[in-house]
Amino acid sequence: MNSTSTDILISEVGPRDGLQSIKSIMPTEKKNAWIDALYTAGIREIEVASFVPAKLLPQMADADQVVRYAKNLPGLTVMALVPNLKGAQAAIEAGVDKVTVPVSASAAHSLANVRKTREEMIEEVKKIAQYRKDYAPHVKVEAGIATAFGCTLQGLVPEDEVIWMAEQVIAAGADESGLSDTTGYANPAQIKRLFKRLKAAIGDKAGAAHLHNTRGLGLANCLAAYEEGVTSFDSSMGGLGGCPYAPGASGNVVTEDLVFMFEAMGIKTGVNLDLLFEARQPLQIGVPNEAIYGMVPEAGVPKGFEPATHWSN
Amino acid sequence: MNSTSTDILISEVGPRDGLQSIKSIMPTEKKNAWIDALYTAGIREIEVASFVPAKLLPQMADADQVVRYAKNLPGLTVMALVPNLKGAQAAIEAGVDKVTVPVSASAAHSLANVRKTREEMIEEVKKIAQYRKDYAPHVKVEAGIATAFGCTLQGLVPEDEVIWMAEQVIAAGADESGLSDTTGYANPAQIKRLFKRLKAAIGDKAGAAHLHNTRGLGLANCLAAYEEGVTSFDSSMGGLGGCPYAPGASGNVVTEDLVFMFEAMGIKTGVNLDLLFEARQPLQIGVPNEAIYGMVPEAGVPKGFEPATHWSN
Repeated sequence: MNSTSTDILISEVGPRDGLQSIKSIMPTEKKNAWIDALYTAGIREIEVASFVPAKLLPQMADADQVVRYAKNLPGLTVMALVPNLKGAQAAIEAGVDKVTVPVSASAAHSLANVRKTREEMIEEVKKIAQYRKDYAPHVKVEAGIATAFGCTLQGLVPEDEVIWMAEQVIAAGADESGLSDTTGYANPAQIKRLFKRLKAAIGDKAGAAHLHNTRGLGLANCLAAYEEGVTSFDSSMGGLGGCPYAPGASGNVVTEDLVFMFEAMGIKTGVNLDLLFEARQPLQIGVPNEAIYGMVPEAGVPKGFEPATHWSN
Repeated sequence: MNSTSTDILISEVGPRDGLQSIKSIMPTEKKNAWIDALYTAGIREIEVASFVPAKLLPQMADADQVVRYAKNLPGLTVMALVPNLKGAQAAIEAGVDKVTVPVSASAAHSLANVRKTREEMIEEVKKIAQYRKDYAPHVKVEAGIATAFGCTLQGLVPEDEVIWMAEQVIAAGADESGLSDTTGYANPAQIKRLFKRLKAAIGDKAGAAHLHNTRGLGLANCLAAYEEGVTSFDSSMGGLGGCPYAPGASGNVVTEDLVFMFEAMGIKTGVNLDLLFEARQPLQIGVPNEAIYGMVPEAGVPKGFEPATHWSN
């Protein structure tokens, strides 16, 4: 087990964001085996499911079972995506430590994605935060600002509106608000500018960077976010999920490559790379028809590589 | 034509570094057509060939013809790789503006790659610089430090030895010395550390960053180098060349993705992305059996994208 403190948090979103984007359904016990392997590798926050109607998303029909299983892993923050109060109630009922509510900065994307205006989504966050306060004060509420760096529907998303949304969800009672590059539009300069403004606007309630690798800039953008003081990063094992365009490309930043970058830089993630690579096996077994990406797993770590995280069994 | 000043220089190495690594031989007129298209897109430095025995490298048998053709393009810096004095003489005879001499910081790599010790390669640089001084004082001599960030043979390459090599080649008469991540081992922290030391050691003779994307960190490393003050970047169209490990992966940083990153950040490359994407066609026609990578060409630029380089025809 890793016993050292860490510099940053790697939040694995594969079991939710990754699986949600693919067609093949991973059986519950295989999801649990994969989550086990991620935990064994040192991952300490996992978005394990989303609480949405099973009819709409059969992949997530076992959300409560997966949450209950993951809650057996000591020290793991078990997170679930919830689009509304009903989902939050179900997630809290199942025992999650944290819910994450997606809120679009793009007016067009908000309507297209959740059929609600941005103002209506802020109201939803308010209801969720109030429910949490009344019934489960130990549960954290995160509101991630989607399309924070641009939108495939409306193009430019004004930065003032992104920051306004973050302020609104915090005012509505969320504990933290991060920024998501839902469309893979972000560049490092924009990342620095927006995370700086986010910190100025909501202080230590500024949350995770959820960045995509659609145009190959995923790691460069994570680096930029780190340099701007971000310490929590969403990523997906094997790059599962998101909107793949190119061979070898994927929506989500690949966890394995991200952990390698930080560890090579001397930044402790608390994750053991060898064990992380081993966790690709239960993922592949669970979704045998899906391509599992990752450049460092393919190329191997450099000869003489010394990770920052010291690991002892 | 682009008439604005640029912030950084994109040095296209595809016609040499890229083609040298593949099996199919591109006919001379197709090389010229590709170089034309790169030039039309605004690229103003191209490594067009290497001057090595044609028996060893049939791809480069037409090096002098390609140099002579490229010299017709006004304002283009025509560069060639030369491993020794004989190659430099041939390159200068053909009319190059600049020669680049690869010099390994790794003792093991130097012996394996050019069958010379590092000290012998420094002597070679001295001979080339002297020849240049005597016979072609307008020609620039660059010595790139290969394996500057690690070596597949010996693993760690001590940073003191990297900087020592750069100092030696400058003392030997080279005009500039850059750092090459030949093995794709570099990380952004190491990039910053070494380019900072390089600048401290050889001042404004510190040259280009030649970085690879073997482990997916190519753009992050270029960003780090830029932040450390590097203004000249080697890259290869379509990621051609280097040592591909993974699908979609390649050795060299992809020019198209690199130009996109900088242009999106507001950093002027002088390159027009649309025309750069068009230059992929003559490349693909010239090497029909090779995979041409590039995530931005596949995904397209973001909706509403505004490049930094203002282009007028």
